Amino acid sequence: MSELAERECVPCRGGVPPMKGAEIRPLLNQLANWEAVGEHHLRKEYRFKNFRESLDFVNRVGVLAENQGHHPDICFGWGKAEITIWTHKIDGLTESDFVLAAKIDKL
Amino acid sequence: MSELAERECVPCRGGVPPMKGAEIRPLLNQLANWEAVGEHHLRKEYRFKNFRESLDFVNRVGVLAENQGHHPDICFGWGKAEITIWTHKIDGLTESDFVLAAKIDKL
Repeated sequence: MSELAERECVPCRGGVPPMKGAEIRPLLNQLANWEAVGEHHLRKEYRFKNFRESLDFVNRVGVLAENQGHHPDICFGWGKAEITIWTHKIDGLTESDFVLAAKIDKL
Repeated sequence: MSELAERECVPCRGGVPPMKGAEIRPLLNQLANWEAVGEHHLRKEYRFKNFRESLDFVNRVGVLAENQGHHPDICFGWGKAEITIWTHKIDGLTESDFVLAAKIDKL
């Protein structure tokens, strides 16, 4: 898992096809409990003790997202947060999505 | 609108029925662009210039939620945030939900 997390997210300029099954599987296997939903986006749910811990996590993800220039969708509330990641430019998955997921797990 | 925003959220101890149509309407009319979805929860979408502004807004909502002891669900990403409010204890709407919505609009 550390290998993916040590790479950097690369801005997608478009013009590449979204990753599909055979490309997705080996990258997904390097992540902990992420799903590749419809081969379109990565999703993971996290649980916390209260609202404050959820918000703290969300802020750490926010700082990381700004640093990487790659921004997930984040849904959270009391004791929970769900992260959704994809590459908007190609409406699907690129390696940078897996890199961001690995970095989030290291937070 | 200021009147609702100046009240405080009151912890719901259960045992009261969720608000329905005739009770909801006058409170909803005091809010700006909130929906009462299925008479079950309040929802509103906000737009921002970038990810940083979304995150800043989410943090202001978070501080307010902690102060009021009333926690919405928050979904956000680059340039957008959606707030959903209901009273979990009765799985529906109470006046405190409208108070929190009014306070969020004043942030």
